[in-house]
Order: sequence, then structure tokens, then C-alpha cells
Amino acid sequence: MGEFELIARHFTRKSRRALLGVGDDCALLQPRPGTQLAVSSDMLVAGRHFFEDVDPHSLGHKALAVNLSDLAACGARPLAFTLALALPSVDDAWLSRFSAGLLALADAHDCELIGGDTTRGPLNICITVLGETEGGALLRSGAQVGDEVYVSGHLGDAHLALRALRGELHLPEPMLSWARQRLERPEPRVALGLALRGVASAAIDVSDGLIGDLGHVLKASRVGATLHTDALKARLGLAQHELWHGAGLEGLDAVLAGGDDYELAFTAAPEARAAVEEASARSATAVHRIGRIERQPGLRLLDPQGRSVGHHLRAFDHFA
Amino acid sequence: MGEFELIARHFTRKSRRALLGVGDDCALLQPRPGTQLAVSSDMLVAGRHFFEDVDPHSLGHKALAVNLSDLAACGARPLAFTLALALPSVDDAWLSRFSAGLLALADAHDCELIGGDTTRGPLNICITVLGETEGGALLRSGAQVGDEVYVSGHLGDAHLALRALRGELHLPEPMLSWARQRLERPEPRVALGLALRGVASAAIDVSDGLIGDLGHVLKASRVGATLHTDALKARLGLAQHELWHGAGLEGLDAVLAGGDDYELAFTAAPEARAAVEEASARSATAVHRIGRIERQPGLRLLDPQGRSVGHHLRAFDHFA
Repeated sequence: MGEFELIARHFTRKSRRALLGVGDDCALLQPRPGTQLAVSSDMLVAGRHFFEDVDPHSLGHKALAVNLSDLAACGARPLAFTLALALPSVDDAWLSRFSAGLLALADAHDCELIGGDTTRGPLNICITVLGETEGGALLRSGAQVGDEVYVSGHLGDAHLALRALRGELHLPEPMLSWARQRLERPEPRVALGLALRGVASAAIDVSDGLIGDLGHVLKASRVGATLHTDALKARLGLAQHELWHGAGLEGLDAVLAGGDDYELAFTAAPEARAAVEEASARSATAVHRIGRIERQPGLRLLDPQGRSVGHHLRAFDHFA
Repeated sequence: MGEFELIARHFTRKSRRALLGVGDDCALLQPRPGTQLAVSSDMLVAGRHFFEDVDPHSLGHKALAVNLSDLAACGARPLAFTLALALPSVDDAWLSRFSAGLLALADAHDCELIGGDTTRGPLNICITVLGETEGGALLRSGAQVGDEVYVSGHLGDAHLALRALRGELHLPEPMLSWARQRLERPEPRVALGLALRGVASAAIDVSDGLIGDLGHVLKASRVGATLHTDALKARLGLAQHELWHGAGLEGLDAVLAGGDDYELAFTAAPEARAAVEEASARSATAVHRIGRIERQPGLRLLDPQGRSVGHHLRAFDHFA
């Protein structure tokens, strides 16, 4: 199977939104008047972002999910994406499952595959996603002193699954299956991001661990924050409830610095509590208050007794 | 140096056109009313698209050039691009030269780096470029029976350089240096593409060899074409004049199937000859007629005696 047959068989569908989709030098989109275009790119490398033998259906899902999560963090509505794919060889069964997982999530978010590139090389998936925002995107830089800090869903299970798959800890069933689902098939919080427009003051998606990603918000907004471990404990993923022992830090490590959660962390004024709850209800996505924005720079973590904890934690960095 | 310092040091500059550039979850662009957005992605893999030890300044140039060439083929004006980069290690000197080459070409075309991703992995460069078109893009599908076929610049020198660098043939100086320049630092024909809007009936950029790429135009337009070897001979790159012997096919191989030329192949009605010449003059880019579009499908190549030649030639395919 050649390059063009590969594209035709697995990645070409009739254009819906695009003026022109897969098959010319460029794809063409007609932006709606009054909207801004949101753009994000993510690259996934075998052995680094996923295990080489991961189910290709899940891999297709996740490759797009991590990009949609960036749109969610900006409160942007998904429009379209390009896929550049380096493959060590052409495996028709693998490609068929990969494209099925990819396109199922694309359809669920009405996000159209409009073009890309295929080449031979070490397995690498690069997706660029385009979305539209109206009336201002959610940015990292908008957090204000006095705002409350929220996070959606649960954190840490993806990291537990990673450690279990690496053989670093034992996770019994059905927790392992649950945690793997979180690691391999994250659900981007697009509906929540859209519902938070005009409500949240700042937002980011949690991909490298809450501490590091919230740190980006604090830095961009030139503020600090205090988080409370009892609130964070309520954010523990289901699998972690099995591993969590009282106030031990084992569970918090995964919550705070684990990564791969693809939940949204955001800030909102105290007066916006009802609006946050309505956004949560409207998007059917749980959110939880975990702390508060303060003038003093940096991120502080306090246990129920008011003692500082967790200073050994740091975010994931691909080059550190 | 960590991931965020790497981005800050080598890839972050003040936003000009973008509402929001590098540093948030998404970049934001404000499309101009009445324009369409042109989008293209290309992935370059070490050892496949470039030699691992190529000058990183040239590599930065080429990685963006091949994407701008896709915009050129659509007659789109460059706006912005994202860069996703997998690096085996962080080499500050290498990154510094890579980003200098990349951003110099970006500046030359007023195309802004607005975001992307960096990760550790086998060297891989994925760029997605965004451009704008007004009043209709140049497409592959517009060629009409009776149209004339044109190609810009010269073809084949990039392929000669590749063969020389692989040790398959000897290319004396200064031809080797010239041919390497063509291989490693192609100049995307953006100005020509813009000048051909409303003039050309179809266009494509020549990246995989003239035969294959013109074949895409013929297929998309449901037509055929005859090309003339004497006209093609005039398109031989400078380096090839040294190697060309009369009517031998050695030179034509590189012209027709060599690839990496990043010239534009396009079609235009015979009545548009003067307009084509004017577009050529306005963009300071030589163009040359090489054949004619016909009803009979397929691509035919005739020598001055009217004999069919070159049927052994085929386009480059990454998976064939």
C-alpha cells in the first residue's frame, strides 16, 4: 500500500465544514464572522507519550484528545484538525484501528480531519487542532487575587496506571482497568471549557501535573495560590482510594505531579460560585474548589492542620 | 535546560499579527473578514527528509519552506505557523542555529510562529502553516482541456545534490554547492502563487517529482497531458547542464521524478499567456511552458521527433 492509498483508505472522508478537506496542497476553512481562531499542536512520540504496543484505537483517541483538551482550556469550540503521522511500516490493521479511534472522537466533537502528512519514520503523531472562540478565550493570565481555584473531575489515576504498567506498583482489578481507561482514553473537557466562558477568570488543562500547570497560570497572572490537601483528597481518582492511607503523601504525589489527567484547572471570582456550578451542571462535569489565589507568589499546599506539605513535588518536564 | 526555558530562549518572540502567540494552551488569530483560511502540515524525519548532520540553519529554513510551498501552490498569503519538535537531546548551539534559519524565512514571508510543542524523541519536525486566501484558492482540480502546462524555475538540481551526497554520483564544484543550496534551502514560490490567483486554472508544488505531482493535478481535474522533452530540457537545473548529454534520459530522470524542487507546476488557458508572463515578472520568478492538457487521461512525454519516452519514471512515494 502506497502513501496515497493509505491516506485514501484510512483518513479521507467527505468534507463537511471545510471548503476543502484532505487531498489538495492546503485545506480551506471559512471562519465565521466575529470569531477568533484558536490553534494548538501536540506531538506524541512512541515510548515517551505511549507504550509502543498500546491499542491503536486508544492511541488514535488520545492523540486527538490531548489537542482537544487545549481547545477546552481556552473555551474554544473544535472545528478541524490536521494529522501528521510517521510510521515505521504500513500495518493496515493497526491503521484501521488507529483511524477508527481518532475519527470516533473527532465525530463526537464535530471536529473534522482536513489534511496532514504521512511519512516513514519512528512512530510519531503530530496533530494541530483548530477551534473558534467568540468574545474572548479563557487565558492563563486572568487569575485575580481572591479568586478561587477549581479543578474538574479526578486527578492521578492516569499516573497510577502508568506506574502499574511500568511494574512500579501493583494495582488490582477493576482499579487497573479504570486507571488505564483514564490514561489511554482521556475525555477532553470541551463542554466544560465552553460553559466556563465569561465565568472563569483563567484556565489551563492539566497535562503535566496540577502543580506545574497551575504554576503556569500563577506565573502568567503574576499571583500565587494556596491549595488545601483535604480538598485535593476529594479529587483523588477512584483507583487511588484503594491506595490512599489517611494523610500520607503517596496519593497526593499522583494528584499533584502525576500528569496525563487532561482535566481543567481554572480560577473564578467568589461571586461566580453559582455560575461555576451551573457551568458544571450544564456540561455534566464535576468541578471542585481546591484553594485560593493570593498576592504572594508561588504555590503553597496546606494540610487540615495548616502545615505546609508537598514541597518536594514538581511538574513533569520532557527535558529536565 | 528544561522544556519551558528551551521554548522561551529559542522560539518565543513578541506577537505581531496573532492576538495571542506562544505560551498559552492555544494561540489566537483574528481572520480578516472575507478571507478563507488555508492550512497545511508537513512532517520532516531525520534520515528520511534530511541528513542527520545537515546544517541546522538550513534545516530550520527547509522545514518551514516546504510548508510555505504548499501555501504558494494554493495562492495563499502566509499568516502563521506552529512548530512541533522532537529532539533526541537538548543541544543549545544546534537549537540556536535551527531557530535562526526557521525564523529568518518566517520573517521574510511575514509568517509568525504562534505555538507548538517540544518533546524528547527521534528528531522530527512537524510544522502546520496557516495562510489566507481571498476570492478563491488555486486548486489541483481546475485544469481544463486545452490549457497549457507551466513549471517555475528549474528542476532536478535538488535530486542531483541528494545523489551526490549519497555518493551515487560525482558533482564537481561549484555545481555541488549550487545543487546543495537547492536541496537544503529551497525558496518557496509564494510570490508567484499569489500573482497566479485568477490567472492559473490549477496549481501544485513539485515536491515528489514533476511526474507524480502533475499526475495529482491531472487526476483531480480528470484530464491528461502531453509534455515535451525539449521544453523540459530548458528546465534543467544549472548543475545538470554539466551532466546532460544530448537526448539522454539521465537528466530527465531528475527533472521528472527527482523531487524536492519546491517549484510550482500550474496550468492556464492559452488566452492567459500574457497574464502568466506578467505574474512571472511581478513575482520575479521564471516560468516556462512545458506541455498541454488533453482529454486523454494520463501523462505522455514526447521527444522532438514525437517519440514517446520516459515511461519508466514514477513519483516518489514514502511507503512504496
